[in-house]
Amino acid sequence: MSAKVLWHFTMSLDGFVAGPNHSMDWMEGLPPRPDLVREYVEALGAVLGGRAGWDAAIDEARPYGDWRGPIFVLTHHPEDARPADGVTFLNCDVAEAVRIAREAAGDKNVEVLSPTIGRQLLERGLIDQIDIHIAPVLLGDGIRLYDNPGGKPIRLQPNATVDVRYHPLDATTRLP
Amino acid sequence: MSAKVLWHFTMSLDGFVAGPNHSMDWMEGLPPRPDLVREYVEALGAVLGGRAGWDAAIDEARPYGDWRGPIFVLTHHPEDARPADGVTFLNCDVAEAVRIAREAAGDKNVEVLSPTIGRQLLERGLIDQIDIHIAPVLLGDGIRLYDNPGGKPIRLQPNATVDVRYHPLDATTRLP
Repeated sequence: MSAKVLWHFTMSLDGFVAGPNHSMDWMEGLPPRPDLVREYVEALGAVLGGRAGWDAAIDEARPYGDWRGPIFVLTHHPEDARPADGVTFLNCDVAEAVRIAREAAGDKNVEVLSPTIGRQLLERGLIDQIDIHIAPVLLGDGIRLYDNPGGKPIRLQPNATVDVRYHPLDATTRLP
Repeated sequence: MSAKVLWHFTMSLDGFVAGPNHSMDWMEGLPPRPDLVREYVEALGAVLGGRAGWDAAIDEARPYGDWRGPIFVLTHHPEDARPADGVTFLNCDVAEAVRIAREAAGDKNVEVLSPTIGRQLLERGLIDQIDIHIAPVLLGDGIRLYDNPGGKPIRLQPNATVDVRYHPLDATTRLP
């Protein structure tokens, strides 16, 4: 079975993992730490994603460039999903989906690349680790990491605050 | 004039600075870094807040315990606001409000303790610095740091991502 079930995202400071309509153009010019992608790819055994993200990822069907492992996409309507090599569409409970992804991952990690699936797995206690790369940008609109109106707060460890400090760029250097 | 106009918040990992109805009970048991409050209080000359936060802060009318400096609350309806010692209600443009607060702050900082005022000041280029203490909790609902549907992304400096890693607590240890 897999090493860990990882909820892994680059997120804007204000809590968005994608812009409106799942757009990712806000990430241009935001450099990840050197070696970051390599580290995650080496430990990655399988990806579990959602249908909305899959439908939006027309141009970049696979995460992490030349990683070639199995991708599972959870959808209630596999029959009309755009197929791709190495992608399996699952129409089942999230716990069963993560079980299938863990089995496929062998001794490597499963990465959950969906906010809605991550939320459901968190509620079931099926997320082992949350890795977030906070990007120096305020989006104000888009797809949120964790959207759960009326839900209860979920506490995380370590129980310490992380202090960050930013300066706004001038209005003239804002993104288009 | 004041040293800096500071947008200063403790925020949940998912981008909320208060729970539903401005509740702050989710912050219980979330320890700030030792000396953090003292550092901010020593540099604090005036506070600029919004009416919604003021109305919600019935039990703790003043931020930072025994800090005694001037507080300015921006409101379109000063006539029905609950008065308090050291609190001035302003009914004016946000830029004028920050000018008044800066003058009152002398050579110390103005802290903007309102998401909506902060957003408007950011758009006008009137925020010097953004200090956020990211708390180890997912809220999923409440008052967001930066809510700006249809707006453009705002880029911040330094232009680097901040990596954070968390583990969820067991469901049994979730907050009530």
